[in-house]
Amino acid sequence: MLTLHTIHNYPPVLKGNVRDLRAVWALEELGLPYGFRWLDFAALEHRGAANRTISPFGRIPALQDDGACLFESGAIVLYLYDKAGRLPATALERATLNQWCFAALNTVEPAFFEMALWAVRWRDKPGHEWYVPRLRELAQERLGDLERILGTRTCLAGETFGPADILMTTALDFCRADAALFEPFAAVRAYLQRHHARPAYAKAQSLQGAGPQADAA
Amino acid sequence: MLTLHTIHNYPPVLKGNVRDLRAVWALEELGLPYGFRWLDFAALEHRGAANRTISPFGRIPALQDDGACLFESGAIVLYLYDKAGRLPATALERATLNQWCFAALNTVEPAFFEMALWAVRWRDKPGHEWYVPRLRELAQERLGDLERILGTRTCLAGETFGPADILMTTALDFCRADAALFEPFAAVRAYLQRHHARPAYAKAQSLQGAGPQADAA
Repeated sequence: MLTLHTIHNYPPVLKGNVRDLRAVWALEELGLPYGFRWLDFAALEHRGAANRTISPFGRIPALQDDGACLFESGAIVLYLYDKAGRLPATALERATLNQWCFAALNTVEPAFFEMALWAVRWRDKPGHEWYVPRLRELAQERLGDLERILGTRTCLAGETFGPADILMTTALDFCRADAALFEPFAAVRAYLQRHHARPAYAKAQSLQGAGPQADAA
Repeated sequence: MLTLHTIHNYPPVLKGNVRDLRAVWALEELGLPYGFRWLDFAALEHRGAANRTISPFGRIPALQDDGACLFESGAIVLYLYDKAGRLPATALERATLNQWCFAALNTVEPAFFEMALWAVRWRDKPGHEWYVPRLRELAQERLGDLERILGTRTCLAGETFGPADILMTTALDFCRADAALFEPFAAVRAYLQRHHARPAYAKAQSLQGAGPQADAA
């Protein structure tokens, strides 16, 4: 039995922006049966010692599969596709998939995640006037590279939607409120629109933070 | 034939701090034959259109293996271990390895990389007085978690040194000049010392930025 450890009472500003979305999206894409273990955000249960025995950096999501436990959204998404028999067969194909997963989480996400923090939590902090334009320039450079890449293909790693697209879409989504940032990049916007239209994405969005009432659904 | 795309004329401040080190470290650990393709840092060759056909975000390293090409240091290190037949056999073991690789590059590296930028390039930038203490607190939290983890094991994913240790060591190394940061964390310091003492690490350090004269060695 797969059990996803996540949070049920996010502040509204975090809804749709937490990395457990990636795991739920993958579970829904793959049609794997799963349940939730809901942690209490108000009590900072995810940051407590008990959760750190499962997710050692006090982050969510974590995934339990029978006795085993995994953390890191990237590893969880890849594991779910592996479990479903949906990872490619050759070392080179797996490496190509991995490179796009790492690109999403190490090359793209940091700038987009920081931009979201400055936009929501740090608006009045010192340094805003030079740090945010620097971040924006970096985000635009990444989007320019993605625009070129997505001009010739519909998904990042091969022809089929998969783990890299879940990770890249949700990394870019940290700034989805910033329409002006994405405006010059038509292929990126089309890529995001296609993936946002997937039923599994909508289901994952609706389940984020839903709490115990979702378990009956 | 494996060819690593990297840079030969780093400014001294970058020496030992660039992600190609990870790939060379893995190549040396595994004893795989390889060569270099040296790019010109002064001409920003890594950021040019030609290199972006190989490494689409204009970053290094990239790896060519016959006709195929990979980028992202995390994916390259995992691919080299896969090619050498050194990845674990089960889906769960591979996922555990992946989780530590993603932890290094998504949970640990961002704070440590930013700290290095503020220490070296951004000392006089506005916001230093609140942003750097915030980053330091985050880095200390990560180190506290790692200290607990490394108190019960010598390597991150199982008993044997591997890809996750290459990635975590080099992620922490972004701040290795900051002895005070690591001082309270004896298990982390011992972990780094053990890995810094590996011959393949020293070889990778000596080769970073060495340029064409290294090819004859």
